[in-house]
Amino acid sequence: MFEALKQARKQSAQKTELKRLLSDCDRLLGEAGESISVSLARQALGRFHKMDQDTRLGFYDTLASRYNPNLAEIEKAVAAYTASKDPRDLIRITQAAEPPRQELLRRLNRAPEGTAIIVQMREEILGRLKKSPQLAAVDADFEHLLSSWFNPGFLRLEKIDWNSPAHLLEKIIQHEAVHAIDGWADLRRRLEQDRRLFAYFHPALPDEPLIFVEVALVPDMPAAIGPLLDRKATPDSDRKNYKVATFYSISNCQPGLKGIHLGNFLIKRVAEYLKAEFPSLKTFCTLSPIPTLASFLSSRHPFERTPFSPKQSVELQALREEVRGFLASGAEHSESTLALIQKLCAAYLLQTSPDEQIASDPVARFHLNNGARLERINVNADPSAKGGRQSFGLMVNYAYDLGDIETNHERFVAGEVIASRQVKNLIS
Amino acid sequence: MFEALKQARKQSAQKTELKRLLSDCDRLLGEAGESISVSLARQALGRFHKMDQDTRLGFYDTLASRYNPNLAEIEKAVAAYTASKDPRDLIRITQAAEPPRQELLRRLNRAPEGTAIIVQMREEILGRLKKSPQLAAVDADFEHLLSSWFNPGFLRLEKIDWNSPAHLLEKIIQHEAVHAIDGWADLRRRLEQDRRLFAYFHPALPDEPLIFVEVALVPDMPAAIGPLLDRKATPDSDRKNYKVATFYSISNCQPGLKGIHLGNFLIKRVAEYLKAEFPSLKTFCTLSPIPTLASFLSSRHPFERTPFSPKQSVELQALREEVRGFLASGAEHSESTLALIQKLCAAYLLQTSPDEQIASDPVARFHLNNGARLERINVNADPSAKGGRQSFGLMVNYAYDLGDIETNHERFVAGEVIASRQVKNLIS
Amino acid sequence: MFEALKQARKQSAQKTELKRLLSDCDRLLGEAGESISVSLARQALGRFHKMDQDTRLGFYDTLASRYNPNLAEIEKAVAAYTASKDPRDLIRITQAAEPPRQELLRRLNRAPEGTAIIVQMREEILGRLKKSPQLAAVDADFEHLLSSWFNPGFLRLEKIDWNSPAHLLEKIIQHEAVHAIDGWADLRRRLEQDRRLFAYFHPALPDEPLIFVEVALVPDMPAAIGPLLDRKATPDSDRKNYKVATFYSISNCQPGLKGIHLGNFLIKRVAEYLKAEFPSLKTFCTLSPIPTLASFLSSRHPFERTPFSPKQSVELQALREEVRGFLASGAEHSESTLALIQKLCAAYLLQTSPDEQIASDPVARFHLNNGARLERINVNADPSAKGGRQSFGLMVNYAYDLGDIETNHERFVAGEVIASRQVKNLIS
Amino acid sequence: MFEALKQARKQSAQKTELKRLLSDCDRLLGEAGESISVSLARQALGRFHKMDQDTRLGFYDTLASRYNPNLAEIEKAVAAYTASKDPRDLIRITQAAEPPRQELLRRLNRAPEGTAIIVQMREEILGRLKKSPQLAAVDADFEHLLSSWFNPGFLRLEKIDWNSPAHLLEKIIQHEAVHAIDGWADLRRRLEQDRRLFAYFHPALPDEPLIFVEVALVPDMPAAIGPLLDRKATPDSDRKNYKVATFYSISNCQPGLKGIHLGNFLIKRVAEYLKAEFPSLKTFCTLSPIPTLASFLSSRHPFERTPFSPKQSVELQALREEVRGFLASGAEHSESTLALIQKLCAAYLLQTSPDEQIASDPVARFHLNNGARLERINVNADPSAKGGRQSFGLMVNYAYDLGDIETNHERFVAGEVIASRQVKNLIS
Repeated sequence: MFEALKQARKQSAQKTELKRLLSDCDRLLGEAGESISVSLARQALGRFHKMDQDTRLGFYDTLASRYNPNLAEIEKAVAAYTASKDPRDLIRITQAAEPPRQELLRRLNRAPEGTAIIVQMREEILGRLKKSPQLAAVDADFEHLLSSWFNPGFLRLEKIDWNSPAHLLEKIIQHEAVHAIDGWADLRRRLEQDRRLFAYFHPALPDEPLIFVEVALVPDMPAAIGPLLDRKATPDSDRKNYKVATFYSISNCQPGLKGIHLGNFLIKRVAEYLKAEFPSLKTFCTLSPIPTLASFLSSRHPFERTPFSPKQSVELQALREEVRGFLASGAEHSESTLALIQKLCAAYLLQTSPDEQIASDPVARFHLNNGARLERINVNADPSAKGGRQSFGLMVNYAYDLGDIETNHERFVAGEVIASRQVKNLIS
Repeated sequence: MFEALKQARKQSAQKTELKRLLSDCDRLLGEAGESISVSLARQALGRFHKMDQDTRLGFYDTLASRYNPNLAEIEKAVAAYTASKDPRDLIRITQAAEPPRQELLRRLNRAPEGTAIIVQMREEILGRLKKSPQLAAVDADFEHLLSSWFNPGFLRLEKIDWNSPAHLLEKIIQHEAVHAIDGWADLRRRLEQDRRLFAYFHPALPDEPLIFVEVALVPDMPAAIGPLLDRKATPDSDRKNYKVATFYSISNCQPGLKGIHLGNFLIKRVAEYLKAEFPSLKTFCTLSPIPTLASFLSSRHPFERTPFSPKQSVELQALREEVRGFLASGAEHSESTLALIQKLCAAYLLQTSPDEQIASDPVARFHLNNGARLERINVNADPSAKGGRQSFGLMVNYAYDLGDIETNHERFVAGEVIASRQVKNLIS
Repeated sequence: MFEALKQARKQSAQKTELKRLLSDCDRLLGEAGESISVSLARQALGRFHKMDQDTRLGFYDTLASRYNPNLAEIEKAVAAYTASKDPRDLIRITQAAEPPRQELLRRLNRAPEGTAIIVQMREEILGRLKKSPQLAAVDADFEHLLSSWFNPGFLRLEKIDWNSPAHLLEKIIQHEAVHAIDGWADLRRRLEQDRRLFAYFHPALPDEPLIFVEVALVPDMPAAIGPLLDRKATPDSDRKNYKVATFYSISNCQPGLKGIHLGNFLIKRVAEYLKAEFPSLKTFCTLSPIPTLASFLSSRHPFERTPFSPKQSVELQALREEVRGFLASGAEHSESTLALIQKLCAAYLLQTSPDEQIASDPVARFHLNNGARLERINVNADPSAKGGRQSFGLMVNYAYDLGDIETNHERFVAGEVIASRQVKNLIS
Repeated sequence: MFEALKQARKQSAQKTELKRLLSDCDRLLGEAGESISVSLARQALGRFHKMDQDTRLGFYDTLASRYNPNLAEIEKAVAAYTASKDPRDLIRITQAAEPPRQELLRRLNRAPEGTAIIVQMREEILGRLKKSPQLAAVDADFEHLLSSWFNPGFLRLEKIDWNSPAHLLEKIIQHEAVHAIDGWADLRRRLEQDRRLFAYFHPALPDEPLIFVEVALVPDMPAAIGPLLDRKATPDSDRKNYKVATFYSISNCQPGLKGIHLGNFLIKRVAEYLKAEFPSLKTFCTLSPIPTLASFLSSRHPFERTPFSPKQSVELQALREEVRGFLASGAEHSESTLALIQKLCAAYLLQTSPDEQIASDPVARFHLNNGARLERINVNADPSAKGGRQSFGLMVNYAYDLGDIETNHERFVAGEVIASRQVKNLIS
């Protein structure tokens, strides 16, 4: 009972703090707020920082309900502008339609550590979105502002290596999402002279990598991930052998930045950087997973997109059934089964669509949309359990020809999947 | 005639470039643009960079005419939301009402040097605004974005001293707007140990100070500017004498950032910084000009604001006539004339209003709105020609008490001018 | 047989390289060498770098035999100076008596990486000294020069923490010689906010720590090493608790710098540094091993130095026999045995002598000579096997009172061991 | 009379301080000194710092008289070694013959700022050397140590440009000794993109350039200094035009480092640096004064060195008389006179000797000894008054072919002046 009392007191204290936080927010937005906004914002974020999860959700709900645009004011401004064509009325429309919480966030952002806390708020809101769909507009406002602030023009590209601060390397270990890093010795291999690791940083979060990419400098386009990750392989110190730069892993570090696309910018910046460092580099490519291959093959989704003729679609469908049979039997994947799977994989990837209307692999969509070419499909490329489960051990090389990126991208958007002859031949 | 031909060709070439630039902009905004936006933006800004003034104006005019919100879409979204209360409809309103040129600027900003060029565009638009009032909405969009990007939370405070790079010091010399710096020797005096100079920088413009403030560390609140600027005065190296930090000059360096208020943030950051370095500092104050005093005294603007009784107003008006007589006579300002002017100055400053409804001095409004106190009015404080012309040589100390700033600011916004007894006594 | 041939060829090639190296050295020392010395030195060290161990030893032997002073020239110069008293003759003496290999080393040092290679040469020479006593004079020349170059005035003190480059931290793990660091997690505990690690660096070896010291910031003078090293203990983030700075480990990293004493400078620099950072620090002390205690107790060395009366010496001798009996019995050390050992330890340390004439513990001599005070002898302080073997688990606190260091040092040099009352009481 | 009393007191105080300083020095050198040497050295240098000029001279005199080697000890060690051949006796010789003041300086150097003060001491000793020849041995010891410490392997090459700290640029202006820099605008021209300025720094004097060189990047080997210094000339930003790197000025900044030759190292380091930055650079050369030409022509020094036949010498002598006649007439130098002077200049420079036995120009000796080639003699090259006085306006290009430097240097040391055909033809 004493515990219950304590709990009640705590809840009441949190409630009071929430009220004070909202009062701070109102003052920040008020006429008086501009001039003392830094200290007001600091105070508000200080309160927020000490709040428990429930109280924070209360805060987000208030953001959703209280700081919305005034519809009447919008309509009045639209009517005025329609009549006057005066740019001042146009300005009124824009201002009236912007939810006041955007200005609130901009002012909170004036506090030291403001950006970090706003990114964290977004992470919490995203985690709540399913349960509280009314937060969608709040989330949209966060995304809108974060997208403006985390503009690639404001980011700093940094090479991470064995000279980097330990606390940064620790974060790399922790955030690697594709091929997990198993401790410091494993990391060290990935930072040797024939490997590269680059990350984007924002000036307001100087110690936090936003996204990073790992690259292997090798003589030939790699057909399997094992040799790239082999911790015992001797680093190749002969720069003359660096003919191919392979992007073999890319990881986001900030869940609060979901939807702020940095990966495509990062890949291109890094490719330019490496091209300048090693003019002899001929090829930029990835070695990528196909996370949805197995689930596509076991689904009912049709092979439907150009370039397949109806006849081809039917044949592919038949092949799929055959493969399913093999797989269902639980036998080891024989060479001939893998060859069939490779064929179906080619068909699946060749129908990748820029929008979500046709079933497509997200990694394929990402790289093709960035202007890459579907270059090669490798069997026995990923021996890990996850690789077997997702894609029967297959992996893909997407190739980035720096000169063709724009054209490829536009052709992809217009409906064409750019692929090598080798891949196309798999299904002809 | 040959010259005319050359001219015509050049114009035609510029016209073509403008068309191409606008086409780049359309692609940037199109579905296809996101993924290749950095190179598209670089190309577009490259074109812009080489354009002549006229063609640029054509570009700005197109920004005003082409990239406006779709009114019908706004109205539809408002109607939908009114009916549904679905946050997705709310998002549609906000998106529809934001002029597409904002997104265009955000994407242009992805290019290297993007921010610098956008700031420069704004400067040119501002210079054109009177002649082309239709640019007002374009300017509002620029200001809106720049204000979000040049958030004080993103700025870096830097101490500038004799160890700073020469190219930076050169810019300080060039931008000092209050008390001109007469060459390197003059600058050096302002960087000695009993002086401080701080500037704000943005990460995207690392070599460009945005705004800077100059401070003198002195034993007493200064009553005249001469001793602070005296190049031959021996620097005071005894830290024990630093009792008063006097902000004696503050200059903006980027005309393209007009309306992005950084001065108040800078003053408070610097005051906190100095307080930490010299815990013995007792007073933070300014020594400021009164740029509008002379023009107010020669105008017909009444003394009207509280705290003046109607009787006082009449008396002040009479005094003003008396002073005008003296001044019109062309005689040297005698001590008694100066005493009268000082009294009128007190009256003028004591009626400073937070908005523009009552005639007020902009420097006074700036500091009072920031939470400063009107502390002292000094005669014979500025012997320069400009000082004589603007304010008969008078200058003002505004005092910043770090603990009172918020309250003072809010009282000022509510209608009260915070002033010392000494100033108030001048008119009682 | 083929192998033998290959071997013979290799040996012959090495012999040729040695000849060329010696020829480079002669040219470096010749009149012509000054002006092109950098490239000559680079070439010579390049050859050296590729030599095998045997050939290098041949090089060191030649250093010993060929580059010695000319005795006749010395005697002539002494005679001349005795007659003339002309300072130019004095200069001739000094120059004649300096072995030419010193100038050779100075010129080799002009090459990039020169210093690193010279330090490495010294390490190899030291390893060979017992077998090749004729290298003693060569070693003396190396030590002389290295001592001049690794002057503490030229060294840079650096704080090592979790922001330091990984390659540096890796070297710390590898060189810790007192309390081994068991991987990155162990290291990290030693870099938390209540721990400090400082190293000395030389500008010519920017990536190589020369010597480092580890410090714990704790509320009380620690009586055992366990809590200081406990990886699971929560770091104490409350600066108010930092009353005592305990130096608990000091490690040399460069065997080639043997005899260049940096430890005492490091301890004092760090103490001053910490005193400035935490003015509230009251005590600077060590928690040190007594590496020779067990071997002293089992030896025949007498207790001989003041302050022991002959009677005391006899008593101590008897105690020693008693302890030996206990220890020989193989039984666990009882509390009473440990009390006896503590008493004998006090007696042993109280006879520490600044020179090597009286059997003394080297750690005690080091700290007492540096001006520390023998403060406390702790039983059950070091539970490690090594601690048991060396000193039955006893450890010592030496206290550094910054104000008394000079006096303490001079009293110690004059024959007095500065000790606390508590320690002295142990034997009275 | 009161003044005299004050003066006497001051002198007496200085005398006391000198005694104390000497006592500090003795303690530093004593057995006790090692361990507390940093604080002792700091104290001693603190005293020195406050001493007046006379007292300092007294200190230097004591250095000369008190800290000399013990001759008897040297002789004993030589005798012992002669008998024993024991390397320990050899070590004794070396130690005995080194003046104790060397160790004293090494220990003083442990104090913060120690190196700076020792360099300053040397400057004062050099200034006194003529009057006090007994200081020669002291000076030799300073030079010996400074030469070891300011080893080029320890120095840092830095590019100085318009981004460099103002305080550094100020020192460049102040120390330029060849072509004076007339203020900041003049300096700025020398830091534009087609100019370079490099300086050597020592880690113990991080803010003090030791020596610097100025370079012009130009299309052709320059025949006159005027265009290189022309402040109004537009910088050439086209890197393709940088074919020739011309070293047009080299200045020492530290008089206390006299005799420590850094210039030749600097020129070669900079040439390598520029070659790496601009692989297209074809030629490295100087544009140098001939400071002794006029005085040689008006002297009686013969033309004597190879390659002149006795007949040639006589002819040259005759020419010299002829030129003297012209010059004595006070008329403007006609073209034909200048042609004669150019011929005589060629003859003078072609007899440059590596030692001082033959009258030679010091600048010529410096560059030829460094491995440069005498490339071209330019008339009307230096219009300044100093240039006219020293060398009738003539200047010389010395060419540095990076591949030939070593051979050239060795041929010069062996007696040959390396010169272009063009120069040799002048006298044939």
